[in-house]
Amino acid sequence: MATERTRVDAEKLIKFSMKALQRAGMPEEDAQITAYLLVATDLRGVDSHGVAHLASFYVSDIKEGLINVKPEMRVFNQAPSTATMDGDQGLGFVVGHRAMMEAIHRAEKTGSGFIAVRNSNHFGAAACYAMMALEHDMIGIAMTNGLTTSVMTPGSTKPAVDTNPLAVAVPAGKKPPFVLDMATSVVAYGKLEIAQREGKSIPEGWAIDKEGKPITDPTERVIGEGGLLPLGGTPTLGGYKGFGLGVLVDILCGVLSGSSASILKESIPAAKTTDHFFGALRIDSFLPVENFKKSMDEMIEAFEALPKLPGVKKIYAAGGYETEIEKDRKANGIPLHPKVIQELQELAKEVGIEYDL
Amino acid sequence: MATERTRVDAEKLIKFSMKALQRAGMPEEDAQITAYLLVATDLRGVDSHGVAHLASFYVSDIKEGLINVKPEMRVFNQAPSTATMDGDQGLGFVVGHRAMMEAIHRAEKTGSGFIAVRNSNHFGAAACYAMMALEHDMIGIAMTNGLTTSVMTPGSTKPAVDTNPLAVAVPAGKKPPFVLDMATSVVAYGKLEIAQREGKSIPEGWAIDKEGKPITDPTERVIGEGGLLPLGGTPTLGGYKGFGLGVLVDILCGVLSGSSASILKESIPAAKTTDHFFGALRIDSFLPVENFKKSMDEMIEAFEALPKLPGVKKIYAAGGYETEIEKDRKANGIPLHPKVIQELQELAKEVGIEYDL
Repeated sequence: MATERTRVDAEKLIKFSMKALQRAGMPEEDAQITAYLLVATDLRGVDSHGVAHLASFYVSDIKEGLINVKPEMRVFNQAPSTATMDGDQGLGFVVGHRAMMEAIHRAEKTGSGFIAVRNSNHFGAAACYAMMALEHDMIGIAMTNGLTTSVMTPGSTKPAVDTNPLAVAVPAGKKPPFVLDMATSVVAYGKLEIAQREGKSIPEGWAIDKEGKPITDPTERVIGEGGLLPLGGTPTLGGYKGFGLGVLVDILCGVLSGSSASILKESIPAAKTTDHFFGALRIDSFLPVENFKKSMDEMIEAFEALPKLPGVKKIYAAGGYETEIEKDRKANGIPLHPKVIQELQELAKEVGIEYDL
Repeated sequence: MATERTRVDAEKLIKFSMKALQRAGMPEEDAQITAYLLVATDLRGVDSHGVAHLASFYVSDIKEGLINVKPEMRVFNQAPSTATMDGDQGLGFVVGHRAMMEAIHRAEKTGSGFIAVRNSNHFGAAACYAMMALEHDMIGIAMTNGLTTSVMTPGSTKPAVDTNPLAVAVPAGKKPPFVLDMATSVVAYGKLEIAQREGKSIPEGWAIDKEGKPITDPTERVIGEGGLLPLGGTPTLGGYKGFGLGVLVDILCGVLSGSSASILKESIPAAKTTDHFFGALRIDSFLPVENFKKSMDEMIEAFEALPKLPGVKKIYAAGGYETEIEKDRKANGIPLHPKVIQELQELAKEVGIEYDL
């Protein structure tokens, strides 16, 4: 199969994705939100979490009835700056967008806003939601637990949390925003999948088997017979810290929302939902936005001015590289893998829309 | 020198530390808060951040005029749930305690509370402040930047952040609270100091020199000629994530408080202050406290029930091991190193109090 990628216009890709989701039963506004967030992820170069998942993951989950396309989301409001939300098994993009807006509205009123969400589904890249805060001059926070446990517990032969990513977005002035979006494992599961597809081995330190020995063959069943290592790796190198961060994400998403920690969901096979946690901090409730942004720019410029190791072209703060990719892809289109193109063409036929990318 | 430790009663140690701080010029209430937090840290086994620092660090800094023993702390309140605070160069324990109480008060009113603090000093262990939230049935958050830059920047020959620890404390029911307290580097600087003292080498993966080569000799000048690795280690194993977390701590503490990122402080030799960030989330503004604590207990019990690797006695959630140490030390005293005993005896003479431990 060819591996050369085809550049596709972002606006066209949004419209195409939106139509496909509408044909799958999603209301117009929710389809628009989902399509926008999916393509925003591709624009920033996070190809593993964008339209590559549209056909084989989201639309197929809708068809299988795993996702409620017309969720009646409810907000349980107990205090001015916080709330819990039930996603009614809606698609994570729709639920996440609504919940993050709720966090932003509360931060507008009180300075900070935090929403714990249960009963949702996969929401794509956490950065999408954290970045929604940027245009409001807020710091945005987003995290999610997963459907399974894949990250090894220090001291045990078994995993106890999923890759539980967390994202934080912070606005700057002239400089790109700081956007940290990280799995709390050494690598996200997608990196194993890429190595599997490409027939490559994985570096020691990404995954271990149930005896604690390194796995370098990604075709071994990493999940079930071992798992990914938490960020930090071995205990000597701080693996308990990455594991602790993964558990923290599970507490804020699963426990605080009234769902449960992932390790307990496994004993409830019916519970095929995920949970999220969103936050927003209004910068001008701490100090004037201009001062903050100037100070952010100064910090990022100081990083960029650091001496570089041989072969390093530029030093970025988190998110800086993705902002450069975004500029290129907005101007020149999103390069899609032939496999993704093929899936989108098949999807078009399946739901009865024109493939016009 | 003998290395056998002497068990010292915690209550006596608090009273002794309090008297010494009062003699150094600190008002009674502030001396009491500081002594309590220092000994609370020793009780949980974090010997690097407790009374071992009393003589050689805090009292000596007070004597050198680096710490203002009568700070006029000011709170700049712009919104119901958030504020900025100026620590007026007070000791970090005093400033941190006041700021965390402020965060808790705001969370009582609105559900969440966040305080960014500038112009403070070393505050000991971050967990101290996060744990203040526990008795209020809140989730507590605490972090701090440092005085210097010691953690290597991915891609550069130089460090750009300090070990910037962050702590989160979450109450459970019958089980010990979840308390994650972690440097965002592979190890805290204290672990290098211990290896230096004991003449031991350090594992590959803790520190690198300016060419990116591993340092295993802790007597090499790690700071200045290289630095600690961020959590994750090399870029392949996720070092940019640990670095990103370190920068995030610097943003929330240094930038958001109106101070500045640590990398910029180095060009201002007079700026010998640190900055903090504190947060509190009121659990019952999300869901009933009983449900939350029951769910936390179930999660921790599920971790404990996991199969263990050979040689592992028990699997703990973060903070569980420290709670066991605390029980032992409350009952049987805190084991102090002969060097610490000697320092405390010299301190007693110096400030003119009885050594009665």
